[in-house]
Amino acid sequence: MSLFRGTERQYDGSFFQLTRFHPLILAHGGAGSKRMTPAQAACLAEAIAAGYGILGKGGSALAAVECTIRLLEQGGLFNAGRGANRQLDGVQRMDAAIIEGAHLKAGAVASIEGIVHPITAARLVMEETGHVLLVGPFAGRFARHFKLNRHRSTSAPRRFSYNRVLAGHRRAPTERYGTVGAVALDRSGTVAAGTSTGGIDFMLPGRVGDSPLIGSGLYADDRSGAVSMTGMGEGIIRLVVAKSICDRLAMGKSPAVAAQQVLRMLEARIHGSAGALVLSRDGRFAIRHSTSRMIAGYWTGRGSPVVKDSFRQKRFAT
Amino acid sequence: MSLFRGTERQYDGSFFQLTRFHPLILAHGGAGSKRMTPAQAACLAEAIAAGYGILGKGGSALAAVECTIRLLEQGGLFNAGRGANRQLDGVQRMDAAIIEGAHLKAGAVASIEGIVHPITAARLVMEETGHVLLVGPFAGRFARHFKLNRHRSTSAPRRFSYNRVLAGHRRAPTERYGTVGAVALDRSGTVAAGTSTGGIDFMLPGRVGDSPLIGSGLYADDRSGAVSMTGMGEGIIRLVVAKSICDRLAMGKSPAVAAQQVLRMLEARIHGSAGALVLSRDGRFAIRHSTSRMIAGYWTGRGSPVVKDSFRQKRFAT
Repeated sequence: MSLFRGTERQYDGSFFQLTRFHPLILAHGGAGSKRMTPAQAACLAEAIAAGYGILGKGGSALAAVECTIRLLEQGGLFNAGRGANRQLDGVQRMDAAIIEGAHLKAGAVASIEGIVHPITAARLVMEETGHVLLVGPFAGRFARHFKLNRHRSTSAPRRFSYNRVLAGHRRAPTERYGTVGAVALDRSGTVAAGTSTGGIDFMLPGRVGDSPLIGSGLYADDRSGAVSMTGMGEGIIRLVVAKSICDRLAMGKSPAVAAQQVLRMLEARIHGSAGALVLSRDGRFAIRHSTSRMIAGYWTGRGSPVVKDSFRQKRFAT
Repeated sequence: MSLFRGTERQYDGSFFQLTRFHPLILAHGGAGSKRMTPAQAACLAEAIAAGYGILGKGGSALAAVECTIRLLEQGGLFNAGRGANRQLDGVQRMDAAIIEGAHLKAGAVASIEGIVHPITAARLVMEETGHVLLVGPFAGRFARHFKLNRHRSTSAPRRFSYNRVLAGHRRAPTERYGTVGAVALDRSGTVAAGTSTGGIDFMLPGRVGDSPLIGSGLYADDRSGAVSMTGMGEGIIRLVVAKSICDRLAMGKSPAVAAQQVLRMLEARIHGSAGALVLSRDGRFAIRHSTSRMIAGYWTGRGSPVVKDSFRQKRFAT
């Protein structure tokens, strides 16, 4: 398999690879202005180590991404799964998506309630249906059909008024960008990407951001690489950011340059800030953010997982 | 304004345009294997003429696209609005999106029930909220807040079983691709794109296709052009087709070549077929489909609107 892949890639004119790929995983816990807490650092490092454990045993990038995101959803320390943000009616509604790069298979759920692991619901959409995206109450019913772990929110529903919310919608967006995500490269050379989120502050019920949208919040293609985003969801959607970064990888740009170019475009055209995990198909990677901080980490299998809340090139000149 | 735009474009090195742009509109009523009925042809021609009427008076591309799609939703002859497909539980759930190219402003609704004009709900999301996408029951509540025309479905709800549906999901996908969509260029040189759909046959409740997803089912950017898609939604999502076509326009490819390259890639990589309306920012356009037929038309203001159910280059060699 890897021999064939190598040959195929030689034909692409890009690089020659007869050996197996060295596995690699990156994960993030959101971009914004907040510092990482020690508990978050521990949870993120543990999730990255667990995902790498799967890759090290020859598991797929898809399984590693799902495993890592499940641990981040489980912990309740990030804005996903147990820790998901509440919409204006007081209910947690979550979005998640997953994509693998060999056959571009993808699955996603949006505005799903009452489960701990939206990322697993997304993977079930990918594997068990002919669809890519299920939304709303029926996404929840689909998850219950597969007996996914339920999560009952403890807070009371809130009343809200469209009139008051819409009158105030021009308030400066907050910087609660707590999405979690991961990208991985497995031994066979396949990449995968995933995201899971509880959304943003002050959002209308039913609002969906970039996270579950293939091409916007995440993308993976063995011909380019894998990307997982976090940040101002609406801006990321409007510029279709993840696909734009992957296209630059396919044109031969390095992960750092590809991320930087697209983040700069996001800032210049939409005044949006974001953070990106970028992994190219040959195993080069970059973590870049135009927010002041980004909680993220990676592990290449050497030493222990690296977890930080700030990476180089924090803000671009406009 | 148009002088400045012209100058800006000269700087881009692409073309020189000091005069106002000649307005133009294209619309489609879905791709697949069905022939167009005379009633559909009349409805499509009328919708195109109404949209052009707005452009001719100096109106915006956004308003023209919305007007054209409203008439297609209203007629009940296409798989959108009154004529929307039913999901497996017997309920019509619709998706729509709209985007304009000057500032990349966009709005979308998905899995919305009980209204005639999802495209107007999408425009309200764009103009009245800070969000891009609202889904599920709360998208309907948002539409009711703005008193959009209601549409009560006459058919009884159906029971369905996940077990039976999921066991049979590998059945060959039907070719009921009845999405409607439009793209337009206005006198100021701004482009816009829109889509509205009732989905596909045999879809799980809550399933969302490419139509409401910015970058997949539609895209518009004054730096490249505008695209509206119809076809195998899941494939269109996985290849982020509309943005891919726009990127090719930005690289200087003609609308016909850009559409052809991406449709061929869709067929080769995902075995998907689709139809595309492609309009470049300088007013060149193409209608291309890899399905056997595509119901579509255009009007440049000369003669009367052209409406056909088949356009050149029907199927590509793989």
